Amino acid sequence: MFDPSDSAGQNESIDLGISESGRPQPGQIYTIPARCGRAVRVGQQQTLEIVNTHGNQVCDLWAFVDANISEYMSMAHSHTALGSIMPKPGDVLVTNNRSPILEFTDDSSAGIHDTVVAACDAARYQQLGIKGYHDNCTDNLRMALGTLGLKLPAIPAPFNVWMNIPVADDGTFSWESPVSIPGDFVRFKALQNCIAVLSACPQDLTPVNGVGIAPTELAFRVYE
Amino acid sequence: MFDPSDSAGQNESIDLGISESGRPQPGQIYTIPARCGRAVRVGQQQTLEIVNTHGNQVCDLWAFVDANISEYMSMAHSHTALGSIMPKPGDVLVTNNRSPILEFTDDSSAGIHDTVVAACDAARYQQLGIKGYHDNCTDNLRMALGTLGLKLPAIPAPFNVWMNIPVADDGTFSWESPVSIPGDFVRFKALQNCIAVLSACPQDLTPVNGVGIAPTELAFRVYE
Repeated sequence: MFDPSDSAGQNESIDLGISESGRPQPGQIYTIPARCGRAVRVGQQQTLEIVNTHGNQVCDLWAFVDANISEYMSMAHSHTALGSIMPKPGDVLVTNNRSPILEFTDDSSAGIHDTVVAACDAARYQQLGIKGYHDNCTDNLRMALGTLGLKLPAIPAPFNVWMNIPVADDGTFSWESPVSIPGDFVRFKALQNCIAVLSACPQDLTPVNGVGIAPTELAFRVYE
Repeated sequence: MFDPSDSAGQNESIDLGISESGRPQPGQIYTIPARCGRAVRVGQQQTLEIVNTHGNQVCDLWAFVDANISEYMSMAHSHTALGSIMPKPGDVLVTNNRSPILEFTDDSSAGIHDTVVAACDAARYQQLGIKGYHDNCTDNLRMALGTLGLKLPAIPAPFNVWMNIPVADDGTFSWESPVSIPGDFVRFKALQNCIAVLSACPQDLTPVNGVGIAPTELAFRVYE
């Protein structure tokens, strides 16, 4: 029986809590190991910076209201707020209750991101022919929240930073390599106290993390 | 404190259960009154037909696995399955666990639908300047499930049948009138036992249900 909080398996994400409280050392750089996820508490008005260390790596990003994680950043509600499926600096992302949660303030990359496809999960890799467990962003999300003692209440659609899924006029899209380059960063200002979860997407069967390149680590920091 | 099952208000949807069990009389035509929502149990292999009686009316559609409504049709997961944000006949829509739930079998209309924006809700109408309660699709969903004694576990993005939100190359979109005509229908075959919820969208502040036209009723039937 499906339960949104149940992981299909585990990886080292279960041990990647950044601190007991989930609060960061301001300014400290944290690594997200390849194929893993991490959670971080971001206080209102703090900035979360995500760095694409090697340039080809997609980061699945979620944000939950710290006081009540059944309220979370929603791509569908953000689409309505923005009149766009491609957020850009200056845009304010909202929750499933239409409350502003993250302002997308800076983007050093070419601005190509995805907000329409789901995070990968165990079922996705089974459908792609994998036998046994494959690391996946949805389990990474579950494990990262688990380091804070929290259970995933539902599966929000992620903001897939640097994911390159060009949507044609007829609605169809293709799976392309990121156009970001090493060192590219994005920055988000928290508009309320939230828990951000970041997953270094372990997809290695489609080109979303680059062709012929193993999934790599990412880095982030939080500062005032 | 936000709870996905809490309605901001009520309308006659609370009294629109189609039967005590939620099961339909096969072939019987049911009306969805303007601005309201109704739930119907659709058995595996049965067909759900939705008719756009007056032609300009958007229908927000959800589908939940009957045995466990925490599993439901997911637009984000369906996008991945289809490689498209514009489902068309022959396409199979899947759940948040990537399980096939509805096959989109027939479409008499020009095939313009939306799968990227959230259902309207009380917060949306507040942001559009409405004081007091405005009927909305999310509360209609909650009330329709309530007629079956069920509480909404999360707010799934709907399949907005006939909603015309053309997405441009740069990701931006506009809110346009439906291109459907009176009598247009869509049909979905249930691939597992499910609960479909249909809302005749009460949006009357943007052109999504036509310019200068009050929201109208819709009709549906379920048959073998």
